[in-house]
Order: sequence, then structure tokens, then C-alpha cells
Amino acid sequence: MLEELKKRVCQANQELARRGLVVLTWGNVSGIDRAAGCVVIKPSGVPYEEMKAKDMVVVSFETGAVVEGELKPSSDAPTHLVLYRAFEGIGGVVHTHGLYATAWAQARRDIPPLGTTHADYFLGAVPCTRPMRPEEINTDYEANTGRVIVERLAGTDPLHCPGVLVADHGPFAWGETPEEAVENACVLEHLARLAWVTHCIESYPRPISRELLEKHFFRKHGPGRYYGQNR
Amino acid sequence: MLEELKKRVCQANQELARRGLVVLTWGNVSGIDRAAGCVVIKPSGVPYEEMKAKDMVVVSFETGAVVEGELKPSSDAPTHLVLYRAFEGIGGVVHTHGLYATAWAQARRDIPPLGTTHADYFLGAVPCTRPMRPEEINTDYEANTGRVIVERLAGTDPLHCPGVLVADHGPFAWGETPEEAVENACVLEHLARLAWVTHCIESYPRPISRELLEKHFFRKHGPGRYYGQNR
Amino acid sequence: MLEELKKRVCQANQELARRGLVVLTWGNVSGIDRAAGCVVIKPSGVPYEEMKAKDMVVVSFETGAVVEGELKPSSDAPTHLVLYRAFEGIGGVVHTHGLYATAWAQARRDIPPLGTTHADYFLGAVPCTRPMRPEEINTDYEANTGRVIVERLAGTDPLHCPGVLVADHGPFAWGETPEEAVENACVLEHLARLAWVTHCIESYPRPISRELLEKHFFRKHGPGRYYGQNR
Amino acid sequence: MLEELKKRVCQANQELARRGLVVLTWGNVSGIDRAAGCVVIKPSGVPYEEMKAKDMVVVSFETGAVVEGELKPSSDAPTHLVLYRAFEGIGGVVHTHGLYATAWAQARRDIPPLGTTHADYFLGAVPCTRPMRPEEINTDYEANTGRVIVERLAGTDPLHCPGVLVADHGPFAWGETPEEAVENACVLEHLARLAWVTHCIESYPRPISRELLEKHFFRKHGPGRYYGQNR
Repeated sequence: MLEELKKRVCQANQELARRGLVVLTWGNVSGIDRAAGCVVIKPSGVPYEEMKAKDMVVVSFETGAVVEGELKPSSDAPTHLVLYRAFEGIGGVVHTHGLYATAWAQARRDIPPLGTTHADYFLGAVPCTRPMRPEEINTDYEANTGRVIVERLAGTDPLHCPGVLVADHGPFAWGETPEEAVENACVLEHLARLAWVTHCIESYPRPISRELLEKHFFRKHGPGRYYGQNR
Repeated sequence: MLEELKKRVCQANQELARRGLVVLTWGNVSGIDRAAGCVVIKPSGVPYEEMKAKDMVVVSFETGAVVEGELKPSSDAPTHLVLYRAFEGIGGVVHTHGLYATAWAQARRDIPPLGTTHADYFLGAVPCTRPMRPEEINTDYEANTGRVIVERLAGTDPLHCPGVLVADHGPFAWGETPEEAVENACVLEHLARLAWVTHCIESYPRPISRELLEKHFFRKHGPGRYYGQNR
Repeated sequence: MLEELKKRVCQANQELARRGLVVLTWGNVSGIDRAAGCVVIKPSGVPYEEMKAKDMVVVSFETGAVVEGELKPSSDAPTHLVLYRAFEGIGGVVHTHGLYATAWAQARRDIPPLGTTHADYFLGAVPCTRPMRPEEINTDYEANTGRVIVERLAGTDPLHCPGVLVADHGPFAWGETPEEAVENACVLEHLARLAWVTHCIESYPRPISRELLEKHFFRKHGPGRYYGQNR
Repeated sequence: MLEELKKRVCQANQELARRGLVVLTWGNVSGIDRAAGCVVIKPSGVPYEEMKAKDMVVVSFETGAVVEGELKPSSDAPTHLVLYRAFEGIGGVVHTHGLYATAWAQARRDIPPLGTTHADYFLGAVPCTRPMRPEEINTDYEANTGRVIVERLAGTDPLHCPGVLVADHGPFAWGETPEEAVENACVLEHLARLAWVTHCIESYPRPISRELLEKHFFRKHGPGRYYGQNR
């Protein structure tokens, strides 16, 4: 089942490796078929170079139970499911161990919008969640990771903020498709690196103006967009 | 029309990607044929690896209107046109998202001339523009981006200062040809990185002396040059 | 003798080079056959690309004397032997000149557990030894290097802490096999780099909670592990 | 004439490019045949990838005049000649634009001996010259660059200190052969990068002890060396 989606999710995972966003077997991409009520996700701990479309695991959107696949799904699958349930407009989720985004997550800091490259993708800071509480860590850890993300995004359109930092852990990103989620994860890593270099030059860099933030975001997104070719 | 220039502009754009100065579809190179009154520029949002000479867009130097081409020109085309109109000696313009130059732009700082590598290409600091005002952002944004560059370069020979940082945004560079503009963009990125590392070692590094700055600039440029082979 | 182990140790050395953890001929990997009482190690000062399985040197676990091989063993062989004698559960040892781990060693600092990536491999800080004393340097230097490592690890399960920094020198790592030792050396370098970037963003980053440290370590290691596929 | 040396010098130049120590056409390697009274050096401003052995330029050790070759020699040739005249034991000289070594030169700082990697090659700090005076810049600039290097090395065995930083400019390195000079240039760049990262972690890192410095230097160099295979 879902052979086409398995193929796309597999390719999206390998794209993650090609872009240098993962180390060893770390990181994962999933995609959802909302009509079928199923999520397709990378198997746990399998090397990227050996991965094939048929190794992708299908889990139930409702229960998280494995619907098809011989391997165990990524241990982060419960986090993905919480995000798909909370953010109805998204079609793909990515978790990476990108060096710079992880460093900001370890510093427990939002990445401020310091320039137009940031504004092209995020209509505000890349938010960082609060650290998780002992009881959230000890029980139902991976689902609770999703819950602190949803808590942090409350009141924000997830497509205006297509990624987040989980404090002490690292980045999650999403998009309307698995491919767009990978692009957003890749951009998030670039923004984290760019903000880090900026921060080294100027300890307290000022965020850009609201006008510039909106100008760049909306020239690439929404009905008035004029960047790129007409679709 | 302008088939030869289209080919060169296309290659110059791909050189930008090969040198790691762009991410995804970001960045753009143009070239001008002043006799024909036309500028050839990269189309908006097209992947570098798929780009062909025939995809380049020809726009009018006077009006900015598309003269030839099936795709939309880069959304930064109005910035390029303002630069070509103000700087009569230039034949190519480049905009990149180079990490280090963008970080200095985000820090809203000139890159000081800290060594002879810098002096080989820039006869002074790489200047940073002032941040743009809300009204400049809301109306005619891309042309106004060119205007703050021209304002910042006032009184400077643009070939003695072949690049600039737009505050909160990133670098633009230029040269007598599209190829030279790409070389200058590549050097600007290197200088930004070098100044960043220097800055991390020594918080307030001193600029080099005027004598050393002029020695290195003029041994590579102008009538008394003795670096390189006789042309 | 030990042809299979020579082949694995040779491949593990070359993997080190492929992962960018060594410069020139620096660094080395060894493996032990405890039943045979022998350690197989890289020859001293031989380029990685020219190395063959038959160039590996077999030394006695007891005495350090060369048992087989035409080349001199790595000058760090006495350090490896001290570690194999002290840590009975390990089967491979690695020494690298990884840039970031060496920098922490030069700063004489433990790498604190700043995030879950760290906790996936180390159940606490990556410890740094004390600087060696003049008499330890002047006599029996390489064996004394092993002794300060063992001194620093006192009271710690070496498989819960599969690597260390030797002050003023650089990292050593180990594992149940040579391959696992290389993976741990590679992860140690990544953690050192990640902690460095974090440190640049936030001068005094706080270590993660004990609960999160144990959650991540034990979801990958020991009887209750649920990361990865069932072996 | 000197066909074999031309071939080696050409290869050494290309090795410099392969190791990422040069940008565009910057940097140069030379080698000397003291019996013939000639120095073979890279031509000025020629791309590394197009360079052939026959393009190397032969200049007189005494006068600096071109003895053979159709191209102009590197504009840094007079610096090389001053070094060959002052340091009788050296057979090759290298000038690079390595990012990290250049940054220390721009910061006008010695690179302190912060670890054993440094001690394996330099028996003390990598020294930085004083800035050059206006009159030294205005007249006979390239030879004066050599003279401030020689002034800084006064009283030091150049083979115990196979490289230097020219303040505001960048690194020069040397060795008994052109190949060894390239290795030393490559190591100098690595040490500069390593010291930079260390410096970011610990603002005032302490140099290593004299005992450790000598232990590592002399286990690789001189009559008592025991690193590597017997030659």
C-alpha cells in the first residue's frame, strides 16, 4: 500500500543525508496520506545509503500501530503523529541533527529573524520549546516531545513557522509535502548557522523590522507572491 | 538575441553554485550589453543545475520590461538595473547568499580592511548600507535596494570597491564583466569569512595602513600593476 | 596470524580517514584478540591510502613486543595496551586528531552533556584528564598517557563513557569492537563541535537534566533499549 | 634545465590547491637547486589547474633575474630569495592564503603552542612578524617582506620553526624540500585553525609545558626520533 508515498518518503530521507543534515543513522522524514489515515516513516536505526522504499514503515494516524512493514518505525514516530494531528495543513515532518540548529536548541534560544534570508521562510523567530519536565521525560517521552512543540506553536500558523527547536534536543521542521519539509529543514539549518556567525560578530544583533520581515515572507508565500515562476 | 551573452550569464550563474555561494535557487547574476540597451539575467526561482542559456531573460535597460524570454526574470532585476544605470563602467552584477558576507550584512557592519588579501581587491572597507526605511520597503522595494547601495557608494569609484553589503539582507558585487563580478563575489565571501575569524581571535582588530592597502591594490589593478602575466 | 582482525583493523583505520578525523598520517586504530593475547595496530607514520591489511602490526598484550609484522607499530601502542588491560570489556581503541575534540583537550575542559545527541552515547560529560607531570612525560610517556586516562575514568563504566580527552593532546575512544570504537570517535568529534558552537552562542550553557541524560542513553543502550532494529 | 625540479615544484603547487590552501590563483611554491644557483617558482597569476611543469620559471639565486621561462615569476619571488639566502638548510618555500593562518596574521598574533599536535612540528610558537613600515612598503616591498621574516626568526633554527606569519598579510612556510614545505604549510594551517577553536572555548588558553613541547618535537625530529618507520 501507499507505494508512491513510500518512494517519496524514502527519497526525502536520502535527500536529508545528501544535504549533510544527518550523522550516521540519525534523523528521519515522514509523509502522511490523510485520506488513508496512514503515516509513512523511516525505519529506526537503518543506514541511509542502504534504505529502500519497501523498508519504509506504515503506521496508523489514529493509534500509531504498525499497519505495514517488516522493520520497527523510527523511535520518533509518536512525535510526528502528534504534529500531524495538531497541524492539519502539513503533509511531511522532518527531524534532523543539523549541527547549528541543534546548537541553538542546546542553548535553549529562539533563533531571531536577523535578515531577509530568514524572512523568506519564517514570519518571525524560529521558536524554541521549554525544557521538558522529568515526568514528561519518564513517561510517553516521544509523544510529549510533540506536545511541547504544539504548546510552543499555540496561536501561530504552522505554515508561517515551518520549524521549531526542541530545547536540549534539536530541530523539527514540516511542510505541505515531505519534499517541502526537507527544504524547510535545510533552510532552518542554514538560518541557524547564519545567526550563529552574526552573533559572533555582533553579540546582540537587532532583529529586522516588521516591514522587511513581511515584505520578504509575502513576496515568496501566499496570494500576492511574485518570487519564482507562476505555478 | 544576445545569444553569446546569455551563454556567459548562464555559465556565470552556474559558477556561483559551484563555488558554494548560493543555497537552493537563491542568488543571481546578470550581464549588460550597453550598446543594445539590454540586460540578461537569471530567471526567478529556477534550480541552478537545470538552467540553460535559453532560459536567461532579456530586460530593457531603460524600462526593465521583458524584451525576450519565456520565464519571469529574477525578482532582484530592478536592483541590478539601478546599479547599471549608476555605475557606467560595470558589465556584470551578482547577488549571493554567501554565509559570511550575509552575516556581516545582518550585523550591519562594514568589513574593515584587515589584511593584504582584502587590499588585493578593495581599496578600503566593504561598505554596508543603512537599513531601509518602512516606506522604501513597502513601495518599489527592489529598486530602492539599488538606491541605498548607490547612496552608500557616493564619491567612490565602483571598480575600487566592487561590492557592498545591504544591511539586513546580503552582498551584491559587480565587475567589468559577469565573470569578473562572480570572482569579486567569491572574494567578498572569502574576505567576510577571514574578517570573521580574525574578529573571533581579536575583538577589535586594527585595519592595515593606507600604504599597505594601496601597495596591494595597485600592484594588481591600474596602469602600474605587476601581479599576473601581461595581458 | 589473525588475518581477519588485521583486515578489520586496516578498514577501521581507513574509515577514520574517510570521516575526516585524521590529518596526514596522524591517528590510529587497534583491535584486540583477548584469547590470543594479541593486539593488532596500525604501523607508525604510514599514509592511510597506501595501508594494507598485511601492514598491520601484531603486538603482545602482555609485553608490547612485536609478535608479527615488518613495520614498527604506532608510537601510541603502549597507550592502547594500558587501556586494554584496564578496561576488560573493550575490543577496539582509537586515537584521532579530530579538530574539535583536540581543541577541548587543549582548553583542558570536560565536554559537558548539553543535549540528547550527547546523551545518546555518553552517560555524562566527556572527561578531560589532568595535564601530565614532567616526570611522566620524560619517562615511559606513552604508557603514562594511558595511565592518566585510567586514573580519570576510575569508578566509571568505560562503556558508559566510551571516550576521553587527554589534556594538551587530544581524544581517545573505544568500544566493544574496532568498528564501534571508530563510531564512538566519530561521535565524540561531532559532540565536541556541537558543544563548541553552543558555547559560542551561550557562554555558560547548562547541562541537560539527569532524567533526559538517562532517557536517551538507555533508549539506545542496555537491556531496555528500543532505538534501532532488534538484533 | 632543472626539468626534475620543475616537475616537483609544479606538483607541489597543485598539492597546495588540492589541500584547499589557496583561493583562485593565490599562493605559490618554489624549490631551490643550490648547486645550480637557481630557484624554480610558480608563474604569477596562472590558474592551478592549467599549470604545467614547463610553465615554472627559473630565477637566479643571486640576482633574481629570470634564467629560463616564458612567463613572469610569482610577484612574491623576491621574498622567497631572501629566505633561501638567510636559511641555508631549506630547499622549498611556500606562501599560502590559508584562511586560519591568515586570520592570526591579521590579528598580528603569534600562534601559541597549545598542544602536542603543534609540538609535533614547531618547537615553540608560530611567530608573527612586526607590521612593515611605510618606507619598507613603498620601496622593495617583496624583498622587505622576506627581511622582516628573517628579523623575526633571528636566533631560531628555521627547521625547528618551519613557518611564520607576516603581520597583516599571511603565512610563509619552508622545509628541506618543496614537498616538506607544503606539508609544513598544511600543518601550519591546521594549527592555526585548532588554536582558533581552542581560543573560542577558552579565551586565554595556557601553552603546554616545555617538557611536553620537547617530548613531542624530538620524538618526530632529530637523531632520537622514534615516530614513523626507519628511513
